[in-house]
Amino acid sequence: MSDTRNSLDLSLVQEKLYSAVIADVLDGLGLRNQALNHNLRPLDPSFKLAGRAYTILATHTVEIPAAPYIRELEAVDGLTDGGVAVATTGGSTTAALWGELLSTAATSKGARGAVIDGFTRDSSGIIEMGFPVFTRGYSPLDSKGRIEVIAHGVPIRCGGVVVSPGDIVFGDRDGVVIIPENAASEVLLKATDKVEGESNMRRALQQGMGIVEAYKEYGIL
Amino acid sequence: MSDTRNSLDLSLVQEKLYSAVIADVLDGLGLRNQALNHNLRPLDPSFKLAGRAYTILATHTVEIPAAPYIRELEAVDGLTDGGVAVATTGGSTTAALWGELLSTAATSKGARGAVIDGFTRDSSGIIEMGFPVFTRGYSPLDSKGRIEVIAHGVPIRCGGVVVSPGDIVFGDRDGVVIIPENAASEVLLKATDKVEGESNMRRALQQGMGIVEAYKEYGIL
Amino acid sequence: MSDTRNSLDLSLVQEKLYSAVIADVLDGLGLRNQALNHNLRPLDPSFKLAGRAYTILATHTVEIPAAPYIRELEAVDGLTDGGVAVATTGGSTTAALWGELLSTAATSKGARGAVIDGFTRDSSGIIEMGFPVFTRGYSPLDSKGRIEVIAHGVPIRCGGVVVSPGDIVFGDRDGVVIIPENAASEVLLKATDKVEGESNMRRALQQGMGIVEAYKEYGIL
Amino acid sequence: MSDTRNSLDLSLVQEKLYSAVIADVLDGLGLRNQALNHNLRPLDPSFKLAGRAYTILATHTVEIPAAPYIRELEAVDGLTDGGVAVATTGGSTTAALWGELLSTAATSKGARGAVIDGFTRDSSGIIEMGFPVFTRGYSPLDSKGRIEVIAHGVPIRCGGVVVSPGDIVFGDRDGVVIIPENAASEVLLKATDKVEGESNMRRALQQGMGIVEAYKEYGIL
Amino acid sequence: MSDTRNSLDLSLVQEKLYSAVIADVLDGLGLRNQALNHNLRPLDPSFKLAGRAYTILATHTVEIPAAPYIRELEAVDGLTDGGVAVATTGGSTTAALWGELLSTAATSKGARGAVIDGFTRDSSGIIEMGFPVFTRGYSPLDSKGRIEVIAHGVPIRCGGVVVSPGDIVFGDRDGVVIIPENAASEVLLKATDKVEGESNMRRALQQGMGIVEAYKEYGIL
Amino acid sequence: MSDTRNSLDLSLVQEKLYSAVIADVLDGLGLRNQALNHNLRPLDPSFKLAGRAYTILATHTVEIPAAPYIRELEAVDGLTDGGVAVATTGGSTTAALWGELLSTAATSKGARGAVIDGFTRDSSGIIEMGFPVFTRGYSPLDSKGRIEVIAHGVPIRCGGVVVSPGDIVFGDRDGVVIIPENAASEVLLKATDKVEGESNMRRALQQGMGIVEAYKEYGIL
Repeated sequence: MSDTRNSLDLSLVQEKLYSAVIADVLDGLGLRNQALNHNLRPLDPSFKLAGRAYTILATHTVEIPAAPYIRELEAVDGLTDGGVAVATTGGSTTAALWGELLSTAATSKGARGAVIDGFTRDSSGIIEMGFPVFTRGYSPLDSKGRIEVIAHGVPIRCGGVVVSPGDIVFGDRDGVVIIPENAASEVLLKATDKVEGESNMRRALQQGMGIVEAYKEYGIL
Repeated sequence: MSDTRNSLDLSLVQEKLYSAVIADVLDGLGLRNQALNHNLRPLDPSFKLAGRAYTILATHTVEIPAAPYIRELEAVDGLTDGGVAVATTGGSTTAALWGELLSTAATSKGARGAVIDGFTRDSSGIIEMGFPVFTRGYSPLDSKGRIEVIAHGVPIRCGGVVVSPGDIVFGDRDGVVIIPENAASEVLLKATDKVEGESNMRRALQQGMGIVEAYKEYGIL
Repeated sequence: MSDTRNSLDLSLVQEKLYSAVIADVLDGLGLRNQALNHNLRPLDPSFKLAGRAYTILATHTVEIPAAPYIRELEAVDGLTDGGVAVATTGGSTTAALWGELLSTAATSKGARGAVIDGFTRDSSGIIEMGFPVFTRGYSPLDSKGRIEVIAHGVPIRCGGVVVSPGDIVFGDRDGVVIIPENAASEVLLKATDKVEGESNMRRALQQGMGIVEAYKEYGIL
Repeated sequence: MSDTRNSLDLSLVQEKLYSAVIADVLDGLGLRNQALNHNLRPLDPSFKLAGRAYTILATHTVEIPAAPYIRELEAVDGLTDGGVAVATTGGSTTAALWGELLSTAATSKGARGAVIDGFTRDSSGIIEMGFPVFTRGYSPLDSKGRIEVIAHGVPIRCGGVVVSPGDIVFGDRDGVVIIPENAASEVLLKATDKVEGESNMRRALQQGMGIVEAYKEYGIL
Repeated sequence: MSDTRNSLDLSLVQEKLYSAVIADVLDGLGLRNQALNHNLRPLDPSFKLAGRAYTILATHTVEIPAAPYIRELEAVDGLTDGGVAVATTGGSTTAALWGELLSTAATSKGARGAVIDGFTRDSSGIIEMGFPVFTRGYSPLDSKGRIEVIAHGVPIRCGGVVVSPGDIVFGDRDGVVIIPENAASEVLLKATDKVEGESNMRRALQQGMGIVEAYKEYGIL
Repeated sequence: MSDTRNSLDLSLVQEKLYSAVIADVLDGLGLRNQALNHNLRPLDPSFKLAGRAYTILATHTVEIPAAPYIRELEAVDGLTDGGVAVATTGGSTTAALWGELLSTAATSKGARGAVIDGFTRDSSGIIEMGFPVFTRGYSPLDSKGRIEVIAHGVPIRCGGVVVSPGDIVFGDRDGVVIIPENAASEVLLKATDKVEGESNMRRALQQGMGIVEAYKEYGIL
């Protein structure tokens, strides 16, 4: 996940692309189920996010463990430059799994954001930091004695999609898509091309071309 | 749907009225089920929308048809000045039915907005355009091979309410109401009156009148 | 609920504290179920709210009563300085229970906000007023003949938590927590202390301390 | 609701008709929304029920009232020959509203069954009695301090349909339909006729006629 | 779908196998998503079903078409020996898509059952016929003007799984699994073998062997 | 959990009591939240179950572990005379956690049944065995690579209620109630008494006493 792993400029990807065009390219490659469930929404609607997944698997609990939080803290300490914490609580919404202090620690490690298939708290503070978090919802409740991380760095199912460490995560106002690691270069390249094509078609439509005709001409939507 | 159809100034309606007062007038006429399901929300909370419905009926599919999108594009090309695309996917949320290029094409035709009982994508671009779309949610996924328009210009059930082409659609932060075409003039006239009455009562409350007394005085809420 | 009841400075509480830290202190006292259901969200995400609950119990109806609204209006007239209207419709979402005129009347009485386990309308007007309302959703429909208040000033279940008149209500972007009246002083005092501790830990993380180490040092999250 | 009110032989109706044919006749009269929500199911799948509605309106509560149960008991004492208790909790599923002792009391009054848009308990005992109850689900919990009847003999919304005292209730394995009182004679007469027609078509199909052809011949489904 | 297509003895498959063992064999071949959504349940819990899918695609409508039912009746007339009607309404639950007359017609054609991702009516009559139907729920309402078949014999998504004409459908009290046509022989053969293995392990457990030890010995669950 | 732990005759409890009367006694002791979620239903509606909980905590997974099933098998081998397996998947419904071979193994150990807050398979076989299992639903899919047991013999949240090893579990057609271990003797004794009282009141009602009067006389419902 270090800089040298590949030459991806994640900031540029985040700025220039968007989730819909990436999803279209994935569709074209037969990868038609890479969008996370629609209930994973950005804390701030203007947030965009591109980075490499580091996965966190949590589950419900009813007892406060001897060493609460420990695997979650290890996971966050394990984040590296360009990383994105991708976590699931397995459906549990009894507490927030993510918050401001974890966001602060993740930022210090060079992480670019978090995708939490579960709840988040300290949302105002996280928005002020500008750390892009996507979440199923909000809770003021701490995870201690409610949800506990049991593993990290393993494949997980997050928002209905299997995510493995190293996959590319891209999120914006439309939702979150996962690009499998081995398809990343191809997908991002093709997505950059498609952005161009859409600009041409948009101009034709703005100049009054009917959309039936424009679609014949440009072949995209 | 042309200018000459009636003398409605849709821009004025959109600016001066709001969905709650329209719903109250509809209630008074015995039309008590004209509000779409609450899960139809504006892309941007500040969006307001008034126009005439043009309906689009879509359904789920699993095969990419020979000529994908074709009826949807025809429907959009059929939008005219003052029109609002009112579409339903019949419950399918496997992809976005609406997006930026359709919004651009609709704008070119003079359409005023869209109400999508289904998902939308390119939401940032649509918000930048200022094209008021109301939607059940968001997905980066294209409709091709997932959802297909099968008819347009026919009565549909959208957000739980039957909408026919020509009905007036009014949407704001509180939701979307449908005014049946034959009641439009009466409803909009009475709604304009009610807005006045509320202003008077609001002033009385601001000056400290109790609300039990104010309701006796003004007879409205 | 008058000023003299206790010396709580509700404005200061609202400004300095946040729901997550209050929830943590409640957890520490064994009060682990004091957060309302996550679907109760602020009309404007920047809203914060602190005040004393005055409870309102409503239920579904299908007939317009002889004297509609009457108990709801009485309840609002009964709000006093520092009060918060806390209402439930018992699950009914067929109409809005709260709106702008009620907000205006409540403001005149010195009320600080409202928490509605049900739907709200006139949301744009309420946001303009800056009156912090938390709600399950939105509807343009009036409550008359759909939902009727049947009691007020009694314990109710709101968002899954029993709320009694006099309890402290605190809401922000993370949600709403209820502090039982007899624990209020202790909880608010301890919450103020915890806010300090978090600031220290945040600084350490910002300076690059790992979060495993920081948690050992500061013992909080 | 006495025998003399009309000459309906409810036992015969219950034996000979079924909910689907009644729904078809109601459709033919333009009464297309008379089937209760599908989650109202018979305690025993073989139960059938025909009778006149007596309505009961309940709501959630969190306090044990001074005189718990009182309006519910009055309602049951008010049941008469041929009556059916039709009750709603307004969505509350925190306890059972109906049970064996109420069934026993209702039976003594000549009631023919109950439709509970809420939960039921003592289900084994009720099945043994052969008292046809339709319910949304089951709970061992008593209603005291959880759900309280607030009115009876008034129009209610039950399973999504407005039911008034005196309406005919018909339930079987397919669900429950409501026949408005003033349409009862016509509907039951036409339904009896339609049962005949279906028998003829069934025989033709059994003898190998294709269903396209049979539908042309008999014009029903 | 004719007898000569392959030598599958569907009656024997239906009698000897069960859905869990088939699902296990599919898992072993990497086909891990072949079980329909759990809300598809048999009308009678004792129903078992094995046959070849013939698919039916329906969608919601609000207008009664000029020729209602027509494509549905054609689909049923198109059923052949060993066939199973596999239908989806695309999520619509406003009416029943399947009923007794369709079951009767299907039986005459040699069909073995139906799987309806939608609602069913005439359930008592269908159970009496012994025609195994699996359904999401029940409604007394006819589909006319509510749901209309728009295609048949095309791939559909039913209960979350893509089903193509010719796939093998197997249903019992645990649910419904789909065996892709090209894997049918292999899966059914291996499933027959696995049934043997389980019998041996069951005997060992009955004779008191611990299950940790039995699993080591037999390697199955 | 051995015979000597206490003198409870679980078979007698199972035969003579029912969940509603136990819930009433728990209510009387202020234990008002001891009924599991209503979606936990018996495989066969006639099943009754009384025994001592042995808890199993599972969670979703997407990888087949090195030693699948191992903690689940250990848990089942750990069941003893009078035990009831009480398991939760934490909300995961991607596979069945329980099945016939586990039921067979549990029976051999003297276990009396299972309560699975998750899905079950081999339901026909389990019903034939007469082993009372309560479940949220059914799936033919095996848990391997989908759900994995991570602990047993610890407090868990099952159907919304915290269950600890040693608590008494009672289930019947109305649902499942949990009696905390330290209240077991008192609750079961009082419940036996209440069964008597209800018989007297039932007789009075059968003899025509109004229920308002009967409730005054007997003070129970």
